[in-house]
Amino acid sequence: MRTLSVLGATGSVGASTLDLVRRQPESWRVVALTAHSNAIDLARLAHEFSAEVAVIADEAGLPELREALAGTGIEAAGGPAALIEAAARGADVTVAAIVGCAGLAPTMAAIEQGGIVALANKEALVSAGDVMTAAVARHGATLLPVDSEHNAIFQCLQGNDPAHVRWITLTASGGPFRDWSWEQLCAATPAQAIKHPNWDMGAKISVDSATMFNKGLELIEAHHLFLVGLDKLRIIVHPQSIVHSMVEYRDGSTLAQLGPSDMRVPIASALAWPERMDTPCEPLDLAAIGELTFRLPDEERFPATRLARAAAQEGGGIPAVLNAANEVAVAAFLAGQISFTRIAAQVEHVLNAFVPAPPACLSDVLAVDGEARAKARELMEIA
Amino acid sequence: MRTLSVLGATGSVGASTLDLVRRQPESWRVVALTAHSNAIDLARLAHEFSAEVAVIADEAGLPELREALAGTGIEAAGGPAALIEAAARGADVTVAAIVGCAGLAPTMAAIEQGGIVALANKEALVSAGDVMTAAVARHGATLLPVDSEHNAIFQCLQGNDPAHVRWITLTASGGPFRDWSWEQLCAATPAQAIKHPNWDMGAKISVDSATMFNKGLELIEAHHLFLVGLDKLRIIVHPQSIVHSMVEYRDGSTLAQLGPSDMRVPIASALAWPERMDTPCEPLDLAAIGELTFRLPDEERFPATRLARAAAQEGGGIPAVLNAANEVAVAAFLAGQISFTRIAAQVEHVLNAFVPAPPACLSDVLAVDGEARAKARELMEIA
Repeated sequence: MRTLSVLGATGSVGASTLDLVRRQPESWRVVALTAHSNAIDLARLAHEFSAEVAVIADEAGLPELREALAGTGIEAAGGPAALIEAAARGADVTVAAIVGCAGLAPTMAAIEQGGIVALANKEALVSAGDVMTAAVARHGATLLPVDSEHNAIFQCLQGNDPAHVRWITLTASGGPFRDWSWEQLCAATPAQAIKHPNWDMGAKISVDSATMFNKGLELIEAHHLFLVGLDKLRIIVHPQSIVHSMVEYRDGSTLAQLGPSDMRVPIASALAWPERMDTPCEPLDLAAIGELTFRLPDEERFPATRLARAAAQEGGGIPAVLNAANEVAVAAFLAGQISFTRIAAQVEHVLNAFVPAPPACLSDVLAVDGEARAKARELMEIA
Repeated sequence: MRTLSVLGATGSVGASTLDLVRRQPESWRVVALTAHSNAIDLARLAHEFSAEVAVIADEAGLPELREALAGTGIEAAGGPAALIEAAARGADVTVAAIVGCAGLAPTMAAIEQGGIVALANKEALVSAGDVMTAAVARHGATLLPVDSEHNAIFQCLQGNDPAHVRWITLTASGGPFRDWSWEQLCAATPAQAIKHPNWDMGAKISVDSATMFNKGLELIEAHHLFLVGLDKLRIIVHPQSIVHSMVEYRDGSTLAQLGPSDMRVPIASALAWPERMDTPCEPLDLAAIGELTFRLPDEERFPATRLARAAAQEGGGIPAVLNAANEVAVAAFLAGQISFTRIAAQVEHVLNAFVPAPPACLSDVLAVDGEARAKARELMEIA
């Protein structure tokens, strides 16, 4: 039996994680479950999994959480400091699935305990890559990527020396607009952008998939996770999203990980590592799928990957600026304030206008993030 | 620097192996090189690689070999016993690439030295599977498959526990006749059968690819190599021969190995294992390839895989009978004595007519092989 904490238990990754844990209750003892503001669901989960502590990030929800957990013996807590305290209790495996910069400090607290951190928080490596990887090394933690692409790469690297890697290729579905002309892209609406062809995801990440910023951010993450130079990282468009990513070695062997578009597969891989566990996911039926197609990305229509690569190349606080500027631009697009093609243009504009000092710690990262957001709003003339 | 012997140095796998060794002469010291009857090429290679000993299987070539190596200090020897003696000198890596049952005894001699045996001899596992794998276990040898499919599976299993395997899927090009109707197959000529779409191979193995017996034999090999039940072994037709095989795990993750149709990739993987070495092979360009297709095999038109699976299921000497009967039938087809579709029918006929006692040692295997060939000729009324 191993101990488990899920930071972000009511989100999509949290729900998939707990779905797997529910299928093997004898293998796990749950330490902490946290949620942003959904106290009712959090209390229900904490009760179901007999968690030690349940933490609601938005303190306004704490009375409701306390009431729902009264008499269960489960601790209830609220606010950012309680989130960090819960993560710092340590667990054999901590699933870090809080969305956004709010996840940085709890993720760091989990890393500092030196256990396994199954990472689904993008900002940890995009905005705080150097700071996080330094902490991982310092505390002897093990970072297991939960994102389908990075988990695929992680699997393809098992039993191999990273020194023998020729290229790592991230696959991209290309999003719902992959075949659209520039003119069509200029007129793309939020409703069109959030219809992802293969994955069922939130609005922000669906727009990121449509702009290819998602793949750009993943490129930066891969750079930090696998300690490979940017010249060894490639992107290929693969509309079926069956091959989740690939690693080519110096001898000409390419290893690829394939599977259904179901987050439970990479989550299970991280939960059970270095072993494997059963999932209820459909087996891969390549004969029924019939064909897998591949093509080069078009950085004219989708400049996001070019911008992300340049930001990663510059390093320091620049990737945090890219991420923050993109978040502001996507929110503005979803609010009908800017057009689809202006998302990347605005991000490039912010990158040119704001060059922060390299962050040395997490609070520096958060400061860069805040300043970049302010700059992005100022440049877009959004309040 | 590691020591290397190549049994079957003048054949296709031998030539590819030595091409790789030639590119890193500082890494290898060659012990033994052997050939069937090509004394001139063998002498040239032995001289180039400063081999300790060169052995010609066909003793008629020994005088020519001796003359060509006179004054070089390289030992020259001939005949089956010398072949075994050369293999028994031991080497860090022995590439066992002698074609046919003639390769069994030298391969066994190499296994008995307990080193790494990079296996390209099909008969070792098809006809003598139980005997060979028992010897591998007894002598602590390491068997590394050189065949592209088995090498792919081996790579996909690295860092994983075989207990977690759900399925192993061998890919098959489907051969030149994959889209032919039964009527067309009945009229297929040897010239048509030996034109393989993706690989440049000898006539026998090209015909095996056209009948799918090649895949059937590989199924039997995989059964012995990876110690998985036949119910976990599948075949999928993949005309492009880019995905060389796949392993699906219990969590729904499938790992696949991809690469060019160049034997130097799997050979390099075996030579350098557990590290990797450079090869001059073209990198994989999936965007240029564009699409990979997959479909189920058709065992009505191509019954070979069904016959092979049944033979492996029965075990004992039956796979050796299948292999011997197939060799006789293919030779008869290439000689214009039987039609293409009669190859599988003849093999089935022999399997029904001849049930040998399970072989306990290599000489038993060779006896079964000889009896099965005689039975096959008798049933086909070939002298």
